[in-house]
Amino acid sequence: MAKTSAPSGFRDFLPDAFRKRAELIRRIREVYESFGFEGMDTPAMENLHVFLGKGGGENEKLMFLTLKRGEDLSGTFRALMQTAQEANQRGEHTQIYLKTLGDMGLRFDLTVPLARFYNTHRAMLPAVFKRYQIGPVWRAERAQHGRFREFIQCDVDVLGSSSMQVEAEVVLATSTALARLGFSGLTVRLNSRPLLNLLVRSFGFAEEHVAAAFVGLDKLDKAAPEEVKKELLEKGAPEAAIDAMLGFCAAAKSMAAGDLLDEVSRRTAEHGARHTAQLREVLALTPPLPSGKLVFDPFLARGMDYYTGPIFEVAAEGVPFSLAGGGRFDGLVDKISGKDPAPLPDGRPGGVPACGFSIGFERVFTLMEERGMFGAASRAADVLIAVPSGEAAREALQLGAELRENGLRVDVYPAAGKPVPQFELAQKKGIPYAIVADPAKAEAGVFEVRDLATRQNDSVKRADLPAWLKGKLGL
Amino acid sequence: MAKTSAPSGFRDFLPDAFRKRAELIRRIREVYESFGFEGMDTPAMENLHVFLGKGGGENEKLMFLTLKRGEDLSGTFRALMQTAQEANQRGEHTQIYLKTLGDMGLRFDLTVPLARFYNTHRAMLPAVFKRYQIGPVWRAERAQHGRFREFIQCDVDVLGSSSMQVEAEVVLATSTALARLGFSGLTVRLNSRPLLNLLVRSFGFAEEHVAAAFVGLDKLDKAAPEEVKKELLEKGAPEAAIDAMLGFCAAAKSMAAGDLLDEVSRRTAEHGARHTAQLREVLALTPPLPSGKLVFDPFLARGMDYYTGPIFEVAAEGVPFSLAGGGRFDGLVDKISGKDPAPLPDGRPGGVPACGFSIGFERVFTLMEERGMFGAASRAADVLIAVPSGEAAREALQLGAELRENGLRVDVYPAAGKPVPQFELAQKKGIPYAIVADPAKAEAGVFEVRDLATRQNDSVKRADLPAWLKGKLGL
Repeated sequence: MAKTSAPSGFRDFLPDAFRKRAELIRRIREVYESFGFEGMDTPAMENLHVFLGKGGGENEKLMFLTLKRGEDLSGTFRALMQTAQEANQRGEHTQIYLKTLGDMGLRFDLTVPLARFYNTHRAMLPAVFKRYQIGPVWRAERAQHGRFREFIQCDVDVLGSSSMQVEAEVVLATSTALARLGFSGLTVRLNSRPLLNLLVRSFGFAEEHVAAAFVGLDKLDKAAPEEVKKELLEKGAPEAAIDAMLGFCAAAKSMAAGDLLDEVSRRTAEHGARHTAQLREVLALTPPLPSGKLVFDPFLARGMDYYTGPIFEVAAEGVPFSLAGGGRFDGLVDKISGKDPAPLPDGRPGGVPACGFSIGFERVFTLMEERGMFGAASRAADVLIAVPSGEAAREALQLGAELRENGLRVDVYPAAGKPVPQFELAQKKGIPYAIVADPAKAEAGVFEVRDLATRQNDSVKRADLPAWLKGKLGL
Repeated sequence: MAKTSAPSGFRDFLPDAFRKRAELIRRIREVYESFGFEGMDTPAMENLHVFLGKGGGENEKLMFLTLKRGEDLSGTFRALMQTAQEANQRGEHTQIYLKTLGDMGLRFDLTVPLARFYNTHRAMLPAVFKRYQIGPVWRAERAQHGRFREFIQCDVDVLGSSSMQVEAEVVLATSTALARLGFSGLTVRLNSRPLLNLLVRSFGFAEEHVAAAFVGLDKLDKAAPEEVKKELLEKGAPEAAIDAMLGFCAAAKSMAAGDLLDEVSRRTAEHGARHTAQLREVLALTPPLPSGKLVFDPFLARGMDYYTGPIFEVAAEGVPFSLAGGGRFDGLVDKISGKDPAPLPDGRPGGVPACGFSIGFERVFTLMEERGMFGAASRAADVLIAVPSGEAAREALQLGAELRENGLRVDVYPAAGKPVPQFELAQKKGIPYAIVADPAKAEAGVFEVRDLATRQNDSVKRADLPAWLKGKLGL
């Protein structure tokens, strides 16, 4: 067989990358756990009906399906042949596949599985369920730069509380996590998806043009207002509404955040009152963010249209894309579970209240790697014990065990031979020191310790080795 | 949609189980990393040809396949129809499936992917590659108690060294890991697979009966010698060979380990010399094991027949099954990669030397849960801050942030309301203390702290809270 690699769009992780990713997950987990969020997990696969038609949108089409297995393969196959001949005339190949050949799908996000999980285990979960989940999802994306078919998602969600405390907490927890990763100058932008809808309508856009207006607002970051106007006109939006929106955007730039919220509140009147009150509450409740600030941004739209309340997105200084995003999605868990809860008397959607934040794990990882933000995480061990001869092996293994008992990470070279190639291996693995297990010296109770960067040797007494190494390593 | 659960054979992990599994992984990783083993990972899926006919044995038949996707579905489908009609007469349904519908398989172990990984990245890896991998594998097993279709494997392997130091090191590392998990009275049984083969032949078994003799030896633990004899006779093995083997087994029970190895050495003569020398070397090199011992067991066989040298298995006191097992598998990586390396001049298999150990993660997890070996791992947070009213929310969130900066894990109840249900939630999550964020008391700089087990309250000054809680929690 020819040399082969991981399938297209999939990645191997070599030790250096693995260590960094594990470190990234560890830090994020630690922060979320310090907020009382609990880790949980669901299987890689779900029964197909859990995924189909449950708000996955485009992602549903990218789902990997697993083939049915086992003894009934031939029965399945005959059924397939039958339906296939019928369907061939109608050209409905894909559906046939789904229904007769696949019985499970690999998860394409962590939200649909969460809804299924919550539905299954609700009686055993706390009334307010604060969870985090960090794990791989799979999408049959077209292979292109930076798009993977297997990638980590990192979600934090609170189910069961409609209090704005939840928004304040996920905003604080997520910015604390990003600060812990080393990002500074964080800006958490806050808006409300229903409020944005009302605001856009207030300019005179009809419902049919609201989506186009959102796209236009999103483009204003990069494109000139005239371009945005041209596009909206082409889509049939009324010129007066476009001008009103662009005028408001221009004026907003010079307004203080508080005044801006007042102005949006005025424009959206009583329909917007509940939403502006929610935003004021989030702003009032959120404690000062570590290395960052929370600001109202009336134009933040977010991609998904399932949000029912506040939405947020985090950017860091000098990073041209957002690092995390989220919002409130009351009732979505019910919808994914196939239920259709009646709206509450005050107009809010019924069902399970929910709010979550998702860190863009892969882009954060790439960014941290590019910027060298991982520090000491890339050391395979603290010290290598070189084994110059077969006679030295037992001593080397024994010394390794002793140093480990003292809290050091020790790589004993797993074969006897010349020390220099052993030093080279250590350097390749990022190990800073090497001890040569020379039996003659060991008998005298002394070992040579080599600083692999400077190539300086020191003689250290056996009993002093742990303290000496820890001192050098700053442990 | 009706209430639904995870697919048959798949598991959800609720927070308590998740924390314990994460803790188990963390401890194993820490130990393996303290030996300089490096973590790495491969994708969940590989191209199908990587898996097919590569020594997976029965496991290969249990592989989950993913359906081809995308625009060429109808083309694939037509091709399938064509070949299917031809193959229908021959009854070869399964193969058609494999070749035309599936293009990737989910990994069913971590060894085949390791071989593919090593093949892909060899130039970038150290000359001796010490790796660990802990991750899920998938097998379409029949659902039954204790058999899962998604389960964690935990492998440690050294590629590139034929030194017996490797055996000594994986034995020491794995028993250190098991000791770190809390297991005591460990017995690591050591044998050599080729030596066992020679030993069985020395009793007079022909090659065709060797496998049956292995099975018989394995059964001697539970079954009477007469039963084993009966079965072997039924399989056509010569009575003289059976009697010789059973006689040796009976005599072995009363022999000291060193004498036993001498006796095996004598029986297997010059053909066994290399293998007995290897075992003597492993026994001499291995440092004293933490809470356990390494013993020669001439009858240890292990399931897989790909082992080419020493094999080992670990049992703990009072546990009726092995917790981990492994051995040397020189050349297997090459075979999995489709190469057929020539044997070395001394008769050893050529190709990449390799040796590994695998901890039975799922059985270890189940056992530790049954025996309550996880301790404090099941606490969602150190303290809950109860929020008695909407006015208290800001203070509660602020206090939470302060306590977290002092290293405490703090769950702020994510809604305002009566404290008692909030206390109940805390107890459900295993949180030992609760602080009531009462605005009136907070203004006076004092908080009530409740011990949720004893229901005793203490008044603690705000500034003293971190130290007070850490003292109570033993942090």
